[in-house]
Amino acid sequence: MIRLPINNQLAGYNRKVALDDLLAGSITAVLLVPQAIAYALLAGLPAEYGLYASVLPVAIYALLGSSHTLSVGPVAVAALMVNEALKDYAGSDTVLQLEGAALLSAIVGLMLLALSAIRGGAVVRFISRPVLSGFVSGAALLIILSQVFALVGASKSSGIWASLFSLFSDSGSAIHMPTALMGFLLIVTLILGRKPLVMMLTKRGVSAQVATVISRLVPAFLTLLSAFMVFQFSGAWLAGVRTVGELPSGFFSTLPRAIPDWSGFSALIVPAAMIATIAYVESISVAKSLASRRGQRVSPDAEMRAIGTANLAASVVGTMPVAGGFSRSVVNFDAGAKTQMAGLITAFLVALAAFGLGDFFIWLPNVVLAAIIIIAVWQLVEWKELRQLWASARVDAWCFIATAIGVLVFGVEVGLLGGVVLSMAHFLISSSKPHIAVVGRVGRTEHFRNIERYQVHTKRGLLMIRIDENLVFTNAEAVEQYVLKTALGNIDVTKVVLVMSSVSRVDATAVHMLSSLYKALQLANIELAFAEVKGPVQDTLSRFSEEQRLHCITYLSANDAFESYIEASTFCDAMPQC
Amino acid sequence: MIRLPINNQLAGYNRKVALDDLLAGSITAVLLVPQAIAYALLAGLPAEYGLYASVLPVAIYALLGSSHTLSVGPVAVAALMVNEALKDYAGSDTVLQLEGAALLSAIVGLMLLALSAIRGGAVVRFISRPVLSGFVSGAALLIILSQVFALVGASKSSGIWASLFSLFSDSGSAIHMPTALMGFLLIVTLILGRKPLVMMLTKRGVSAQVATVISRLVPAFLTLLSAFMVFQFSGAWLAGVRTVGELPSGFFSTLPRAIPDWSGFSALIVPAAMIATIAYVESISVAKSLASRRGQRVSPDAEMRAIGTANLAASVVGTMPVAGGFSRSVVNFDAGAKTQMAGLITAFLVALAAFGLGDFFIWLPNVVLAAIIIIAVWQLVEWKELRQLWASARVDAWCFIATAIGVLVFGVEVGLLGGVVLSMAHFLISSSKPHIAVVGRVGRTEHFRNIERYQVHTKRGLLMIRIDENLVFTNAEAVEQYVLKTALGNIDVTKVVLVMSSVSRVDATAVHMLSSLYKALQLANIELAFAEVKGPVQDTLSRFSEEQRLHCITYLSANDAFESYIEASTFCDAMPQC
Repeated sequence: MIRLPINNQLAGYNRKVALDDLLAGSITAVLLVPQAIAYALLAGLPAEYGLYASVLPVAIYALLGSSHTLSVGPVAVAALMVNEALKDYAGSDTVLQLEGAALLSAIVGLMLLALSAIRGGAVVRFISRPVLSGFVSGAALLIILSQVFALVGASKSSGIWASLFSLFSDSGSAIHMPTALMGFLLIVTLILGRKPLVMMLTKRGVSAQVATVISRLVPAFLTLLSAFMVFQFSGAWLAGVRTVGELPSGFFSTLPRAIPDWSGFSALIVPAAMIATIAYVESISVAKSLASRRGQRVSPDAEMRAIGTANLAASVVGTMPVAGGFSRSVVNFDAGAKTQMAGLITAFLVALAAFGLGDFFIWLPNVVLAAIIIIAVWQLVEWKELRQLWASARVDAWCFIATAIGVLVFGVEVGLLGGVVLSMAHFLISSSKPHIAVVGRVGRTEHFRNIERYQVHTKRGLLMIRIDENLVFTNAEAVEQYVLKTALGNIDVTKVVLVMSSVSRVDATAVHMLSSLYKALQLANIELAFAEVKGPVQDTLSRFSEEQRLHCITYLSANDAFESYIEASTFCDAMPQC
Repeated sequence: MIRLPINNQLAGYNRKVALDDLLAGSITAVLLVPQAIAYALLAGLPAEYGLYASVLPVAIYALLGSSHTLSVGPVAVAALMVNEALKDYAGSDTVLQLEGAALLSAIVGLMLLALSAIRGGAVVRFISRPVLSGFVSGAALLIILSQVFALVGASKSSGIWASLFSLFSDSGSAIHMPTALMGFLLIVTLILGRKPLVMMLTKRGVSAQVATVISRLVPAFLTLLSAFMVFQFSGAWLAGVRTVGELPSGFFSTLPRAIPDWSGFSALIVPAAMIATIAYVESISVAKSLASRRGQRVSPDAEMRAIGTANLAASVVGTMPVAGGFSRSVVNFDAGAKTQMAGLITAFLVALAAFGLGDFFIWLPNVVLAAIIIIAVWQLVEWKELRQLWASARVDAWCFIATAIGVLVFGVEVGLLGGVVLSMAHFLISSSKPHIAVVGRVGRTEHFRNIERYQVHTKRGLLMIRIDENLVFTNAEAVEQYVLKTALGNIDVTKVVLVMSSVSRVDATAVHMLSSLYKALQLANIELAFAEVKGPVQDTLSRFSEEQRLHCITYLSANDAFESYIEASTFCDAMPQC
């Protein structure tokens, strides 16, 4: 028997755990069905494609994933990215759209598998947390704005901003009042159905866990209720409310509608790379944060493989890319899921629902899906994180804001790339402004500290400078200028010691700088020496020393350098002829 | 009277210094005239435009520059860049080419002045030395290849590689034999006229200085000689040798031929930014290296202003961008120039020559200019630097090679940008792989060292980890993985101390990582603590500590952390019930 990752989770599996998984899997399925449909529509695909993405990929992840509780399936941000990618790829050609969606899933899957094979998961490290938060927040806001149209029964024409502008500028004539009223009521009910409902129920003596489960079922209940209302009143006051419309009856008979045509491959490479990155980063973040709550660990490599395979499965059934969803996974976790058996149960129940739901979609109004998306996605906007960054790390806050605005104004791809470039630029710029301190000895200890912050001893004529950054091309010139200015600005100085305790790397540009600094100081009769040079740095300096004629004394510690220096005045006192 | 920078140089000016300047200025002028003409042709402009660029801009720099010996004027690499920019901008429209050249100079000048005004000289720091060397070497090779055609009397048709291929593939039918023969002899004579001539002359008792001056005059002598030969034998065996052709007689009557039309502004922004960068970096490198030989200093800001103003002057006289040239400045320096009076003399003599040279150009063969360019530019190929980098810093060597190949294959702009991006990517990647060491105490000292390199004391249950890199988003995950793996991999561990002596910066992503690390270790009953935290890092950690619930003990030194830890076994020995 092949040992799948899920086998590790099932050690000591018993009836109690199985019951937990059954309950959690069922609750997640009830939440997943309307979400899957909504996200398929968000991606610009027929509703049933959301369900397709919620069966086989979910089951595959359950078998391969290292997280016990991650719930995979269509997710909002990836759906938005699919929508943007398909707009460019297929325009309004629906067959080409389906083909493109399956092709995207295939490329995303292959990329993740290839990356995990070369242990390339490290590439996502270059997305800093503020950029990721800003990206997700911006995308969430963009999704909310795009759902405003469905919420008020209007249709989106061209760009989202132009459409929003015209929606509100023509004095609301495009708004379908019955839909808008329904939308308003749904939003209010969904909000009340969250914390207020839980608080109300617990106050009335319902246990917290049951109250939470009931609260989680509100969206599914509202979905059924609004479909029933449309069924009942579509001839009367709900006339003209748009619905999802007839689905092909049955399930597997309809798929795959489109076989990927690999000729479009190259056009989808960039969007697929973006979707793969976000799908992985989102999944691993959620999986890690849930695992840490129970003292479990997830393996980044295994996760990358599992998400990759799940996307290949999505491609096989001809549907859109999948990822681990934040809100759904939290629901799964809170509902008590212990292992990925819960995921298998979810997949089974969604498949079952898909068989029986065909006719139901004729009556299902789009407005309820829009309301569900808006409320689900609103939680992805990380206001709290932004507030904290603003208070604690202003530059990181600006990276967050710039990324979010980039997404809102220029779209998800440009926004994400812009954020990554911005954070890298900030990193490079801060490394180009190294912290440099003139240091002195603290009392009779061997500790040396910044003369501006501490009461320390110095020796006349000896300048000890600590460089608090790796010496590389970005900061070599700044260091040279600082040392020259400080050394030549003091007539007494006869020796400069560079304390290299914080320098872990030195590159060729920096060695050239040190060599030119050495010569410049020599011309002013100032000796240059080093102290506390780390092994690798010493190696680099020695390799260059011959060609660069950089023959400086290197002291083991700053204290050695300090002790060995004979102060000019002391020297003169000892020598009568001075 | 306005105090110009040159006034500072003229303090204590006397007849001896003036004579030095007169000689050096004259020698430089004799070298500059053929170079200026050659570089104008290299840039795709009429020959006289090189002379225009060698009068007013040279004089302006002499008045404003902070270097005593830098010789400004047309330079080879910038000429090549102008050529590429004008090819895209003007095609074969000669009027538009002239206009574009003047426009380029104007933008270059304005950019440098604007940069110096906002003290933005730091942007050039992001060009590492290997990238700059690789760029200049690649550009020099490209220039040499482009001169091969003039050297053998053939013409370049389309792309340089295709032209070279067809030149040698059609069994040399495009080669004009008399020109090629002349080219060969000129190259040999120019090579012999350098070191071999100096050595021969000094052997015969000529003083080294006079020998050097004579050697420097060889190119000018060959220019005159070959013009004379064409004048004499153009009807006979030198028939068909191409010459520069008739120039407009007189000088100021012809300029400016073209007034910049600012509508083309945006198309030239990127090439101008590149030329400005290279013009400044080349000038400041040469100026710094010459200044350091005499214990003088140059001011980067003043240089940027001076080069910028010189380029504005070039634009006013309607010609191409200028910069400080390497070989010419070395000649000026070696010939004994003491102040920029030498530069004023050079400018005056070039202007004089330009008035009288009009008819001379009819007989001046292109082949001698090509030979002069090839020999001058060959010295820019930094083989020695490459060899040294290859031996001492392999990654830097690859940056050099990639930039040079980029220039040769994709052109100067793509090559330079590619090199900069490559070196930044390497910087980011190396910062994402931080050096991390488990440390222990050296004997009874307060020094802590890597347990793999030194014989050190450790305590059972206490894990001390030193992180040798700033903690930022690029490496946060790697650090987390390392610490978790090491701490959880040893069943004894009850406390982890992160020794932060090399950490000068911590960003939001890293704080989140530390917080998640703290929680993960807590679940395994392991305490997390810090030691040797620098001031700014401590500030960042405190700002986040409340929200992140990161409440760790911070020890002043690694030794404090070590001393205060009670080893598990010791504890048990003391407590009988263990």
